Formats: sequence, C-alpha cells, structure tokens
Amino acid sequence: MHKKLFIPGPTEVKDDVLAKMAEPMIGHRTKDATKLQQDISEKLQKVMGTSNTIVLSTSSGSGLMEGAVRCFTKNRAAVFSIGAFGKRWYKMCTANGVPADIFESEMGKITTPEMVDEALATGKYDLITLTHNETSSGIHNPVGEIMKVVKAKYPDVIVCVDTVSSMAGDYIPVDEWGLDVCITSTQKCLGLPPGMAIAAVSDRAIEKAKTIENRGLYFDYVELVKFVKEKPYQYPSTPSLSHMYALDYQLDKILEEGVMNRYNRHVEMAELVRDWARKNCELYSDPDHLSVTVTCITNTLGVPYSELNKAMGEKGYLISNGYGDLKDKTFRLAHMGDTTIEEVKEMLSALDEVVAAIKK
Amino acid sequence: MHKKLFIPGPTEVKDDVLAKMAEPMIGHRTKDATKLQQDISEKLQKVMGTSNTIVLSTSSGSGLMEGAVRCFTKNRAAVFSIGAFGKRWYKMCTANGVPADIFESEMGKITTPEMVDEALATGKYDLITLTHNETSSGIHNPVGEIMKVVKAKYPDVIVCVDTVSSMAGDYIPVDEWGLDVCITSTQKCLGLPPGMAIAAVSDRAIEKAKTIENRGLYFDYVELVKFVKEKPYQYPSTPSLSHMYALDYQLDKILEEGVMNRYNRHVEMAELVRDWARKNCELYSDPDHLSVTVTCITNTLGVPYSELNKAMGEKGYLISNGYGDLKDKTFRLAHMGDTTIEEVKEMLSALDEVVAAIKK
Repeated sequence: MHKKLFIPGPTEVKDDVLAKMAEPMIGHRTKDATKLQQDISEKLQKVMGTSNTIVLSTSSGSGLMEGAVRCFTKNRAAVFSIGAFGKRWYKMCTANGVPADIFESEMGKITTPEMVDEALATGKYDLITLTHNETSSGIHNPVGEIMKVVKAKYPDVIVCVDTVSSMAGDYIPVDEWGLDVCITSTQKCLGLPPGMAIAAVSDRAIEKAKTIENRGLYFDYVELVKFVKEKPYQYPSTPSLSHMYALDYQLDKILEEGVMNRYNRHVEMAELVRDWARKNCELYSDPDHLSVTVTCITNTLGVPYSELNKAMGEKGYLISNGYGDLKDKTFRLAHMGDTTIEEVKEMLSALDEVVAAIKK
Repeated sequence: MHKKLFIPGPTEVKDDVLAKMAEPMIGHRTKDATKLQQDISEKLQKVMGTSNTIVLSTSSGSGLMEGAVRCFTKNRAAVFSIGAFGKRWYKMCTANGVPADIFESEMGKITTPEMVDEALATGKYDLITLTHNETSSGIHNPVGEIMKVVKAKYPDVIVCVDTVSSMAGDYIPVDEWGLDVCITSTQKCLGLPPGMAIAAVSDRAIEKAKTIENRGLYFDYVELVKFVKEKPYQYPSTPSLSHMYALDYQLDKILEEGVMNRYNRHVEMAELVRDWARKNCELYSDPDHLSVTVTCITNTLGVPYSELNKAMGEKGYLISNGYGDLKDKTFRLAHMGDTTIEEVKEMLSALDEVVAAIKK
C-alpha cells in the first residue's frame, strides 16, 4: 500500500506529474532540450519573483548550497542557523575550507535582524547564509525584515538563502527582498520527485565569483550560468531530463493555480494543523514565526511516536518523527506542495481516530 | 515524433523501465528506502564484478569523478587523457586545487601501459585517472593491461576509472582488474535516464580519504560510504528515488540477460556499425582499440553532417556529430544499453537510404 506522505519531503506527487517522469529521452544538446530549459527558467522566474538567472542542478538542494558558499565567499561567511539545515550549511563551509562562523539560535527560535546586524557590524563577513524555513523545528525566518537591514547597512554582502522547504509554498519574493542566491529543490513545495535543485542567482554574485579561486566544477555557479547565458540554456553535463519534463509541466500547473493562491492554500493547511496541535498537544516553536509548510508538535499525547507512526501507517499515512535531538520529544506534520485542504483534514481525522484508539 | 537515440548518451530507455520512473514517492529514511538501496547495491556489485562498496550519487557521472580526485589525491594526480572526458578530469583537478598533471594521447589513440609506467616511475603521483571508454573518439583503453603494470610496480597508487560510457556494455571486471574507484552513470549502457551516478569504491581508498582534508561534502566518498555502511544503506541527502526505482528494476533485467551476454551483444552491435563505416567511410580511431559502445566515423561521404542529421531525423533517428574539434570531420553512432541488433540494422538501413538519396 502506498502511504500518503505528510513528511517534510519528499512530498506526495500527483499522478499526472509522475507520468511526465516517464517520458522518453531526448538528446541533451538538441534544440528541444534548450527550449525545455528556457521554458523552465522563464516559468521559475515568475514563481520565484525574480529576473535573476535560473540555474538547474542535477542534485539535491545541498549541492547548490555547498556550491554557493564556495563560489561567493571571498573573506568569511556568517552562517545563521535555526536548526539542522543551518548546521549543515556550516559543515559545507568547513568541508571546503571556506572560512566561516556559525550564529545559532535556540531551537524553535528565529534568526533576528539584530543578530545579523551585530555580526555584519564587525566587518568580517562578505557573505551570509540564511535558512528561510527550517523543517527540523517548523519555523520560518523573517527574511524580508533581515534583508531590510542588510540592504540598508551592508549592501556589498552576498546573501544566500535556503528556501528548499518553502519556495512555491511560502511567500518569497526574491527580487523584492534582494536575495543574491535563492536555492530550492524539487521535492518539497514544488510537488515533484527529489533529484533536481534550483537557484536564482544575481549578476553581481556571479561577477564576484569570477574573482574567487577553488570554486570546484560541478557546483560552480560561473560554469552553470555560462551554459545558461552563452550556449544558451544548456547544462554543463547531462541533466536529469525526466525531472526537467516534470518540472516544466508542474510549473504550468503552479502558475495556473497562482503563486499567491498557492501561498494562501499553504497558510490554510498550516492553520488546520496548528489548530489540531494546539487542541491535542503543544506547538514546539515560536508562535510568531511558525512555518507554513511544516508543523513541529511537542508530543504531549502520552503516546510514543513509534505507536502513533505505526497506527497512522496502517491507515495509509506517513508522518515524521522529530529531527535529531527532538526525535522522541516532537513529531512533525508537513503540509506542502500539491496537498489539498481536504487531504489535510482527512489526515487529521485519521490522527484523531488513532489517538483515541491508542488512549482507550 | 520521438527520435530513436543513437547518440552516446542519453540512450534509448525501454517503456517498462520508463514506467518505473513514474512510481509514487516514499520517505527516503524509511525501511523501504533502505531495502531499495541495499538491493541496488547488491545487484550492482554483480554487474560490476566487485565486492567494493557501492555509492550512489544524485548527479551526473562528472560529480563523482570530481569527488574522486578531491577525496583520494594526497600528493599529485596523473590524469591520462584520450579525449574530451580525460581533459574534463584534469579541469576538475585544477578547479579544486588538486595538484595534477595531464598525459594526453593523440586523438583516436589509447593510453598505453608504458605511458602509465613512465609517469608513475617518477614517484610523483599517488593517484591516476583513466578513461575506460572515450565517446569523443570511440576508443576504449586497455585498462586490464594498464592495471597489471600498476598492481605489480605501484601497488599504493589509487586508480580511478571513468566507465561512464561503458559499464554494463563493455567487459569491466572491477575486482579482477583491481580498480579502487570505478565510476559510471545511468544514462549510457545501463539503459536508464540520466540523473544518477554510481561508484564502486575500495576500503583502502576510503581509509586514505579519511587522512585527506578539504574533500567537500556532497561528493565526499567518506560521507557517502558512511551512510551505506553505518546507517546502513542510506544516502546523506534526499536521493532521486525515481532513478532508484528504475535502476533496481533495470538491474534485474540486466542480470537476467547476463553480463557476458550483454557484453557480447554490444560487441555484435559494434561490429555491424564498424562494417558499415568501413564500407562507406573510414573508422576514425586506432582499429585495435575500438570502443564497443560508440563508433566514431570519419565523414568521407561528401555529404555534410548537418544534412545527414536532418535526413536521419526525418526518418526518426538521432545520431551525433563529432565532439569538439572533430565536430565537422567525424560523426558518431552509439550502440549501447538496451538497443537490439535488429534496431542497429534498421538504423543502418535508414542511413544507407539517406546517403543514397543525398548522393543522387
């Protein structure tokens, strides 16, 4: 039995989108492949609210995040972490010899504009990384507020943002906020299978990267952008054409729904899940900054997660345990991608039945 | 109209294999995902003739090649190049600050055991890279012969081999030859869509890598192997599950055909194409070392490639121009993956018709 996914990625993919993954191959240096990549780029620019260059990467989002700190850090990176994926960004720096410091918020709390201001005021950093949405704790950062400070006081700093678990779900206007490098991947709010990462990258970031040594090759943004701008619309090695077929198709569906409608649906799904959590347990994170794509719930049910998971599995649902240290203390319900309000309600009803049955 | 692919990757993928790309998602940290990766690993070990650890990478083969030179070079790498993909390996070294020298053979010629012996005799190198099969010129290296020299005289040298365009088509017994790092990807002889790379890696290579700094993260073999051995059978980030479904299924089909039968079919397909080339044009490369997966043909037809390609396209076939500098001088016919003898004959008949019609 296929279990419906309410985990923070991969998310459920609709059948018509999956069918696109099964289309026959074309040559990746043909005009058809170029047109495919151009169409994807133009649609992604609309979804992401940007005129920056779109690069695709056959990899998970982690690959383009690693490439970003290598390509765009000349002096030192300030990594602002609100959980597991912030820490991973710091690990990417150290694994590549990129000088970096990490500024960690307490789990369940945000990166504040003041934290960023204080760090940048030292003058040590020419790049910052932010996690927009942290799936381990179920919060999202006030990136728009942070960017007001950065743009006003530190305009030369390159800003890289991980929107892997929020782009095309949450509200992220890339150009309005002024993000230099905005990274996402297919298997979360875009509602596609995992296997392809996406970044929107500014020209000034690329110009800076050209002055930086030791950028690597596969995740070198200069190389990726060169193939987009000069070939044009090609990819340096052989890309996952299957993902490109499905992405191109799915972007039409997303634009048809409308980016703001899609955001509103995510807010509505999140509110349903938060209501359930407030009624039955406790919300784990700062209530003023709750993620609209995943909710982290402190398990006060008196029922271990393993039992909850098993019973939900029998009803055809996959939910998620807590991440890392929170493994037993919390559990997580994701509500992202093409999941509908009705499907969230059905899942919560199943959860009610499961909790009632276990408690009886 | 879908054009049947006779280009050196991506290759034609059979419908039943494509259908596996469209299966619904599962959680990538579930027992089902672990079993999937374990099954794939065990089947790949059979296909590759190895007991080394199998790592999967959501990327093209280039990613794992780049990771290999970063992870396993402590002193200096000797890159033996027989064409475009050897040069790319050298570029990967320089882009990552890995000290390296390149030893280039003339286009259409092999890397000889003597060349390798002479380079390694200097004592400067602790790692070599070889291209097993070079699609730009249509030759394959005598890797077995080269390995006899390396194993006998330079047993500590780590050997990395690019078998991207030959594994599961040509004869490559990894353990018998003693390859430390053998890299391939899905879109060539394995008969799958592009998007996943594969390596078989020896324990001694991993032990050495642990002593090397600045290995990066996404293509860090130590990290990839840790997730296989300790989790076990998991992947550090979110992998392309669609490719894993299709790979698992396709490996059953390959093992059912039999690795040696598959090799013999490739030899037979190659001979048909070479016969056509000898009759109508000239073979570009050293006749003693012709690739069994792709044939590079010097265009002596008196017909420009563009016309040939257009006419073949109208008949439903995609063939390939020459690579790089050979673009106009040669053209290439690939014969790899699940392509059948009958399909090769049909393609060659179409080519005969096209040539006759153009010449008339």
